[in-house]
Amino acid sequence: MTLETTPRSTIKRGAKRSVPERDALHAVLDAGLVCHLAVVVDGAPLVLPTGYGRDGDTLYLHGSTGARSLREAAEGVPVCVAVTLLDGVVYSRSAFDFSMNYRSAVVHGTAVQVDDPERKLHGLRVLTEHLAPGSWDVVREPNRKELSATRVLAVDLAEASVKIRTGPPGDEPEDVEAGLVWAGVLPLTTSWGEPEPCPQLPEGFEVPEHVAKRA
Amino acid sequence: MTLETTPRSTIKRGAKRSVPERDALHAVLDAGLVCHLAVVVDGAPLVLPTGYGRDGDTLYLHGSTGARSLREAAEGVPVCVAVTLLDGVVYSRSAFDFSMNYRSAVVHGTAVQVDDPERKLHGLRVLTEHLAPGSWDVVREPNRKELSATRVLAVDLAEASVKIRTGPPGDEPEDVEAGLVWAGVLPLTTSWGEPEPCPQLPEGFEVPEHVAKRA
Repeated sequence: MTLETTPRSTIKRGAKRSVPERDALHAVLDAGLVCHLAVVVDGAPLVLPTGYGRDGDTLYLHGSTGARSLREAAEGVPVCVAVTLLDGVVYSRSAFDFSMNYRSAVVHGTAVQVDDPERKLHGLRVLTEHLAPGSWDVVREPNRKELSATRVLAVDLAEASVKIRTGPPGDEPEDVEAGLVWAGVLPLTTSWGEPEPCPQLPEGFEVPEHVAKRA
Repeated sequence: MTLETTPRSTIKRGAKRSVPERDALHAVLDAGLVCHLAVVVDGAPLVLPTGYGRDGDTLYLHGSTGARSLREAAEGVPVCVAVTLLDGVVYSRSAFDFSMNYRSAVVHGTAVQVDDPERKLHGLRVLTEHLAPGSWDVVREPNRKELSATRVLAVDLAEASVKIRTGPPGDEPEDVEAGLVWAGVLPLTTSWGEPEPCPQLPEGFEVPEHVAKRA
């Protein structure tokens, strides 16, 4: 399915890197861990890292009821959400052509506060499963006090754009021919380390599979 | 040196994670590769991933003269810049206490377009050396045409906040005592992979040390 095009979701710079597919949007959102949520506060932009999760074409965001960015976003004001994954540094022969390989999604929309208790719990499950797959069913669910201290927002994924850069540098032919400078990609990979058990765990508590074997 | 406190750079949520030190701000900015730059366009927020570099207490941003976010930012409007580093997922005993370990910097300011040719070149050197240390002195410098196609912005690091979370989960004592659920931190590490030489390089072109041994 193709992403709908609106003036602000139309990529003007580097249009060749635009990937107007809904599947690509989902893939970028599913691969990220944290998003950057931007709102307007007193006429100035505010951007903060925020947890999120995706369910179909709904993006759930959450945080404390006191967090300013979420409080603003909950008023039904426009929000912009970016998820960026860095895949490598592109070393070029000319300074101008240095770049990064990346996958990037930018969502424009209006955040709606989720107040219905059942949907709020669903949103929190989506958020928790995004951050820590396999956890929701084994941990203690939020109680009433915790629920009311948590704000859950939903953003419809109707208006979004995706940009992806892969591959070698795009130097000018004359720089390539000169053959004076090494060029290529230095890949950047993220990986999970060894689980660090909480010091307050009962002795010998085994690391569960959904943590130990997280992909 | 302590970071100056203004209403919008005062961390209200999770104040115990606030690190009001200029050194901490510099360290987070120096450790990141990409920032998220937010501006206000037609009353709505716009946030995009952008390259940056730091020189003292100046943050340089750059991009194409056509890029909308930078074009807006160049008008002297307020900007907000976030750099976020994820260090791990915090698995807790209760859904409410799930978290991440992270280092985060948020800068509020006004972007000033750098037009003076010498300072512009300096800004580009700072940006290139941030993205790819050791590269500026070996690559071809931008020519006049490339320089005029590049926008360099400078943001003063006067108003900024830093938040850092480290360590184990902060579960409620009763959840800890129950001892039912594994809890701990799954660290997330980023590392450089094997350099992928550009297919158009002359045969046998050795990977230079600043790439092969990048820390």
